[in-house]
Amino acid sequence: MLSLGLDAGGTSTRATLVSTDGECLGYGTARGGNPISSGTSRASSEILAAIERACESSETSLRDVTLITLAMAGYLTQESTRWLEDPLAEAGFTGRLSWSSDLLATYFSGTFSPNGYAMVSGTGAAVIRVTDGEVDTTRDGLGWLLGDEGSGFWIGHRVARAVAAELDGRGPATALTEMLLTSMEITDEGPHLQGRPAALSRLITALYAARPVELAAYAPLAFGAGDDPVARGILVEAGQLLAHSVASAYDRPGPIITGGSVLAQPGALRDAFTAALHDHGIDPELTPVSDGAIGAAVLALRGRGVDVDAAMFDRVTTGLERLRRE
Amino acid sequence: MLSLGLDAGGTSTRATLVSTDGECLGYGTARGGNPISSGTSRASSEILAAIERACESSETSLRDVTLITLAMAGYLTQESTRWLEDPLAEAGFTGRLSWSSDLLATYFSGTFSPNGYAMVSGTGAAVIRVTDGEVDTTRDGLGWLLGDEGSGFWIGHRVARAVAAELDGRGPATALTEMLLTSMEITDEGPHLQGRPAALSRLITALYAARPVELAAYAPLAFGAGDDPVARGILVEAGQLLAHSVASAYDRPGPIITGGSVLAQPGALRDAFTAALHDHGIDPELTPVSDGAIGAAVLALRGRGVDVDAAMFDRVTTGLERLRRE
Repeated sequence: MLSLGLDAGGTSTRATLVSTDGECLGYGTARGGNPISSGTSRASSEILAAIERACESSETSLRDVTLITLAMAGYLTQESTRWLEDPLAEAGFTGRLSWSSDLLATYFSGTFSPNGYAMVSGTGAAVIRVTDGEVDTTRDGLGWLLGDEGSGFWIGHRVARAVAAELDGRGPATALTEMLLTSMEITDEGPHLQGRPAALSRLITALYAARPVELAAYAPLAFGAGDDPVARGILVEAGQLLAHSVASAYDRPGPIITGGSVLAQPGALRDAFTAALHDHGIDPELTPVSDGAIGAAVLALRGRGVDVDAAMFDRVTTGLERLRRE
Repeated sequence: MLSLGLDAGGTSTRATLVSTDGECLGYGTARGGNPISSGTSRASSEILAAIERACESSETSLRDVTLITLAMAGYLTQESTRWLEDPLAEAGFTGRLSWSSDLLATYFSGTFSPNGYAMVSGTGAAVIRVTDGEVDTTRDGLGWLLGDEGSGFWIGHRVARAVAAELDGRGPATALTEMLLTSMEITDEGPHLQGRPAALSRLITALYAARPVELAAYAPLAFGAGDDPVARGILVEAGQLLAHSVASAYDRPGPIITGGSVLAQPGALRDAFTAALHDHGIDPELTPVSDGAIGAAVLALRGRGVDVDAAMFDRVTTGLERLRRE
């Protein structure tokens, strides 16, 4: 009995073909498969492409797959699931399609324990508490305007405001200013206007022309600013906010799986995150994962009623690592 | 020789007809006359309406007016001024049209001194330093995404985030939650989703559907929340940020004129503002003004080379007060 576990993110999609004994038989990737960010038609063709590649690599027909488990953000608020059901049926899939949370796929990429936590901070930021293998509580993930505290957007927004404040004469000098202006190809040539540098109005024009969420693109500048105290202050506060979100969901010990680019890199942010977890009385042992591919396969197995224990989790992890190296 | 001073804001426009000896002869108002917020065609007809009313009330013909001084936000970045020049010419105006800053009109509504400061906090927030009757430095006014620290938007945004945080289980209980949900007519009926109340997803849907700047509409909730510590914390921080903006422009003693709804009301915000000014070594004596009508008339007189001294400033102020009562 064959299952496919899919982790469909905003920028890439990963499909893993797995047998009920935990053997990983095939693996395929494609571009973004989230219907909210890519649109349903592009999302479904990317998902189908990842599935085809996973099947091809193991010379398996989609007809032999009896379960597909798709983990993606926003799966709970879909009005209809036919955008994917119909193309799957056309491709010959006759099995069952089940949906799951991308955060839960992140969680099960780091542990087989049915009880614990996942904290993902990429463009946005959210925490889940997992009980008996299901999401029982979510914190944050409220988007750039109302939440996502400590996310890539949050950091990039603070970077942009710190640079604007320095150019405006309200904020301290920071290495971020030259870094941001250089990355945006903004010069300071031209006359000052009412005491303000020409670069400030260029910065304002450029940043208001973009969608707010695109400010997340400037988060890496904070990580690359070395000892700059302004950048360091932003990263420390972000780490503390992320820890606060974990603490607000924490009611018993359990593994903490971390995903997303923000907590992936060592330094001021992660140090502040673990220190703040410790202050909240939480053992700050973290398991970082790079994506939700393993977890999607685990979710597919769990969806069949397979008991994914330490040995089987190890088999899935090792098998997928081997396929990814190929 | 007759002049018209116009204060054209986003929600209302005020026109004052004044003679070179400082006598206020006519006064008229209309709706928003800012071309950025109202569009050039609506803005010009509102401005013309205010002018007509000011002329009618004193039985003056627009042909006898030789100078119009228009104070409005964004006047420096206009690509063309014909949106107003052409309709004025059609209405029979043959004099000179000059442009000025809305912040400078606020400033000269509170003092005749050619040197000092104006701090306006309404939907946005900005400070100017005035030297020899001209704006020589501006601070903030960078808009909701990059600045406007301590503004109505800033406060309303904090209110919305505090309410979202409480509903999300991350933030402390606050009276603002019931106030905001009531004002938005959001109920909490329906099942919780992954540990979160139904009101949270309704709040998210409603607030993301609006333009971000509309969050300024919720600033009054913070002022109306009594002793609520969350609301108080927001107001205190806003007052400190506004004082910081003033301090960043401050280089010598001078009157501080305040405009906009945020600093108009007594309480935690204004107390924090004056305390923080004091901490910055600034004498926190404030002159609040309700709009820029007097200042626009003063700017028109100054534009003619009239020396507006204490006696003439008093004459303009008293005369305009009388007209406004009529």
